[in-house]
Amino acid sequence: MGLDMSVESGGLAEAAAQLLKLLPVRSAQPGQAGVLLSADAGGVELSASDGEVWARVQVPAQVHEDGEVVVSRRALAETLGTLDAPRLRLCAEGARLAVRTDRARFALPQLDLEAYPRPPHPPQAVGVLSGADWRAAAGPVASAASREDALPLFTAVRMRSLGATLSLLATDRFRLAAARPAWREAAAAAAAGPTGEPSASLDVLIPAGLVAELARQAGRAVELTLHAADGRFALSWPGWAVGTASLAVTFPDRQLDQLLRVEPEATVRVDADELAAAVGRAAHYAGPRGAVTLELGDGELCVRGSDPLSGESAETLKADLLGDRLTRQYQARYLLDALRPFTGAPVRLQIQSALRPTLFTAATPDPGADLRYLVVPLRPTTDPDH
Amino acid sequence: MGLDMSVESGGLAEAAAQLLKLLPVRSAQPGQAGVLLSADAGGVELSASDGEVWARVQVPAQVHEDGEVVVSRRALAETLGTLDAPRLRLCAEGARLAVRTDRARFALPQLDLEAYPRPPHPPQAVGVLSGADWRAAAGPVASAASREDALPLFTAVRMRSLGATLSLLATDRFRLAAARPAWREAAAAAAAGPTGEPSASLDVLIPAGLVAELARQAGRAVELTLHAADGRFALSWPGWAVGTASLAVTFPDRQLDQLLRVEPEATVRVDADELAAAVGRAAHYAGPRGAVTLELGDGELCVRGSDPLSGESAETLKADLLGDRLTRQYQARYLLDALRPFTGAPVRLQIQSALRPTLFTAATPDPGADLRYLVVPLRPTTDPDH
Repeated sequence: MGLDMSVESGGLAEAAAQLLKLLPVRSAQPGQAGVLLSADAGGVELSASDGEVWARVQVPAQVHEDGEVVVSRRALAETLGTLDAPRLRLCAEGARLAVRTDRARFALPQLDLEAYPRPPHPPQAVGVLSGADWRAAAGPVASAASREDALPLFTAVRMRSLGATLSLLATDRFRLAAARPAWREAAAAAAAGPTGEPSASLDVLIPAGLVAELARQAGRAVELTLHAADGRFALSWPGWAVGTASLAVTFPDRQLDQLLRVEPEATVRVDADELAAAVGRAAHYAGPRGAVTLELGDGELCVRGSDPLSGESAETLKADLLGDRLTRQYQARYLLDALRPFTGAPVRLQIQSALRPTLFTAATPDPGADLRYLVVPLRPTTDPDH
Repeated sequence: MGLDMSVESGGLAEAAAQLLKLLPVRSAQPGQAGVLLSADAGGVELSASDGEVWARVQVPAQVHEDGEVVVSRRALAETLGTLDAPRLRLCAEGARLAVRTDRARFALPQLDLEAYPRPPHPPQAVGVLSGADWRAAAGPVASAASREDALPLFTAVRMRSLGATLSLLATDRFRLAAARPAWREAAAAAAAGPTGEPSASLDVLIPAGLVAELARQAGRAVELTLHAADGRFALSWPGWAVGTASLAVTFPDRQLDQLLRVEPEATVRVDADELAAAVGRAAHYAGPRGAVTLELGDGELCVRGSDPLSGESAETLKADLLGDRLTRQYQARYLLDALRPFTGAPVRLQIQSALRPTLFTAATPDPGADLRYLVVPLRPTTDPDH
């Protein structure tokens, strides 16, 4: 196990940093906090697994001696992250992995290679999609999941294949985001299942935190490959493969898909940035409930905040209205989350009767992610000021 | 009290934001959380006081009707901070202060004008100094004070006049920073005191948090005026006056001044940025004590970290040594704080015997602030690895 290699420091540092973001060290088990460096003629592979999520990344290296060592993921990322030397030499030295520049040596303790849980390889490829569409779909959808709910249902992203499109959906009960990016299904995966019925080639439930990080990292690639089999899921893009097991929870697909069939009583088109800025200002007047009111008028939308302690705010934006002059209250932060994916463009709000959720979509159809964002209005309070 | 005025929003927003930074709202007393806007022919004055610190700032305004209103400091700063309209109209309307743009109205509740503690005016001017010298002296000195010590002694900046220079000094026991910027003493202040002895015209102890904020804000002015009388202190610069009472604590001036008379056993000159970067990298290997070792050699300085769990680091920098080849351990974060004021230039370390503090100064004398930074070394541990 005499690993010895020379490597360009920028690429290795970035791989170590990305790996740590995909697999933040939460476990106290040293094996699960490690990263395995496997060097051979092909370069070096960094791999890690925390028992749930796993990742592998290939980095070009000039390998002088093949070998394998495990060190702390965090220690490797921290050490490489602040180096300013362009090239590094990494050598196993006794119980250490030495990282050398021309004037410095950093010696990281090796962890037990036997205790290290070797990550699996991705299951079969089921299809490919563009990195840009993945980012535009997975980022906003993941942001609609809860960060802390006790039920996995509300902290995960549901991913299914529906013929020529993928369906991504997440909800925390108070809002729901869904996207339908196009993908190219692999021929084998599209074949009929064992019962003769066409079976979905992708049918998984993945923790939203991982999906959000994969939106950032894999979203930079031109194209991604999706892998799935037997409740296992992986994403691969040049150099990288990341996977996890699907959460074994039944997801109420039909119920949630139905929510997306809206029957608007009013449709309003407004600049997403102007509305977000106005909601941000009204939020200072939203009181402890964080409630902001949208009031539809002829050719305008009024954003109001009101609270006995904070005072009142009212701001009028230009807007195109079709339908009734309705008034709805929302949590300011849910409005801001719903508007963020539409930054820089006009957004369409479709407001339904009573407390049925409001649908946010791009006013100009976007063929890439086909994003739909639902926000449930707040139950109105009797406000003496209005 | 029918205040009504038009005002350029950028200037008013900046004044409100700076005021909130000088006087963060900590008190639950509504009067102390307020800001008084007093509008008359001369423009508008914003003033606030939390019972200890007070501040006044003049902002140009076109006043349609004189008047005074008190509103929440935080609410005013938050409302003005996110507006994008170039001009605002502010009017007292019933129990509200209305802030209007051409398409929005924000109504802040007025607070009780009677309960508002009117801030004093600055005491007599005792001298002037340049904003740049003030910033270079007050910022680093304030950073050496403790943020949380129970003793005011260790959370304050001592300011005294010593003839043609000001002395600023702060310590938290583990490090000490002192600066001696030049100032121009006011003629009246320089006169002999009532006993016939020349009395110091400035002799105060000011909370370090306020001094740090004043370094940032007043440090942008070309010239500042210092005011002092009867244990009261104030700083004024165009548009602004900020003051507080000196803390009524005896400061051990003589003892601390003595610490600054160093008898170096070794003097080393090294690039401040290179040393700070190396200390930052070694800090990952510094273990729970945060201990980093500096080892002086011929023409070089070695920065080491060592910890059973984190591993070892060693990095060699070019350095000019005069004196003995000593080794000292320091808290990494104190080293980083001590190096920060010397960013972009070579720094000189004067290392004394045993645990006597190490002095950091600019290797090329800087006539502005004459900054000296002392750091007490750590008691060495027996380290089997070295």
